Amino acid sequence: MTRHDPLVYLPRARVQEFKKDSMIYEPNRPADHLYLVISGRVRIYYCAYDGTQTLLRITSTEQFFGEACLMTGTLSEEHAIAMETTQVMAWTPAEIEDRIQRDPMLGLALIEYCASHNLILQERVAAMAALKTGTRVALSLIQLADSMGKATPEGTIRIRGLTHQSIADYAGTSREIVTSEMNRLRRAGHLAYSRGLLDVSRAALVELLRQEQFRGDGAPQTLAAKQ
Amino acid sequence: MTRHDPLVYLPRARVQEFKKDSMIYEPNRPADHLYLVISGRVRIYYCAYDGTQTLLRITSTEQFFGEACLMTGTLSEEHAIAMETTQVMAWTPAEIEDRIQRDPMLGLALIEYCASHNLILQERVAAMAALKTGTRVALSLIQLADSMGKATPEGTIRIRGLTHQSIADYAGTSREIVTSEMNRLRRAGHLAYSRGLLDVSRAALVELLRQEQFRGDGAPQTLAAKQ
Repeated sequence: MTRHDPLVYLPRARVQEFKKDSMIYEPNRPADHLYLVISGRVRIYYCAYDGTQTLLRITSTEQFFGEACLMTGTLSEEHAIAMETTQVMAWTPAEIEDRIQRDPMLGLALIEYCASHNLILQERVAAMAALKTGTRVALSLIQLADSMGKATPEGTIRIRGLTHQSIADYAGTSREIVTSEMNRLRRAGHLAYSRGLLDVSRAALVELLRQEQFRGDGAPQTLAAKQ
Repeated sequence: MTRHDPLVYLPRARVQEFKKDSMIYEPNRPADHLYLVISGRVRIYYCAYDGTQTLLRITSTEQFFGEACLMTGTLSEEHAIAMETTQVMAWTPAEIEDRIQRDPMLGLALIEYCASHNLILQERVAAMAALKTGTRVALSLIQLADSMGKATPEGTIRIRGLTHQSIADYAGTSREIVTSEMNRLRRAGHLAYSRGLLDVSRAALVELLRQEQFRGDGAPQTLAAKQ
């Protein structure tokens, strides 16, 4: 989808490893690097005072996180925690700036990366405002499949180790509603799950959202982009 | 807050004028330029099939919109409509790319611009998932004041021509709830409004959100950034 891949323009950096459940950054120790996942997965979330978590995204291989460090003087309330043993490379804002000065294509690539995140976030804001909860769960599954899933030979997208609670934290609803909605989608043949593996029929979910749209719901834009 | 101001690095472009209520782009005629507001204001929103609008943001002087055009092959569901007579400058993706190649600082500046939008959007996603509706209205007022308000000598921020319906479209709630919540905030002395002018006591609203936070709500991050 993007013309410019940031990975092409970044110098290799030392690989750091984080054990499962270890904190990479948090508000009291905010991100001071732009991170790239080499292997594993990282959960990026907000945590409210009462412990309510909102899952912002799950970053997996070849995806970035910690981009708030590129903005001077900004305090971020993000938490980043390794969901499994995770290897990352990291660059300081000064290193990124220096590299962009030498190779402006990195700048273009990171603009596209941030702009594509903006689209996904805008779609979530619109979905939360306009879509029914069930439709939001379907949209969340599509977005999570796109960001962390792997295509299977059967044409579905497989997601490993995604709990119903995580989906609820992402969609902004309760685990009970996610479980009930996923049962409904499973009975309709749109997804299958067992032993920590979730297989999503992306095309079927997109079709479902299109039908919802014609029944008066929102029109998620990143779906069109992925067709 | 940002170190690099994109305006410093962009060449002057021809000024275009849009009359009040004219469409600058929409899904059938998507943005093919990055736009900068010279004067006036532009409403950026999603429109669902049944007419439900989600207000993504209101861009005013010296702010950009249409950045989805910087991502190849992306279809955007955004609508952009002039709220009043509005003058803009615009650059094609090729012009932006060419300029970044010659001056990498423009790349850095646009990364920061997009990253700051990401923070605001993430905060809205978290707020919609975790905050009570009343608190979301207060957060929306702060974000709208930051993006389109002007500081007054009295220490408040003045917003012109913002309807309760627009605030509702932004917060993802109904106009009735916004009106009731704004009456509550007015009685508490946190805002005043008359004849299309809304004066917001930003510090009081931030304090209110902090108190909510200690009662178990989310901790909006762009607030801290603006202190």
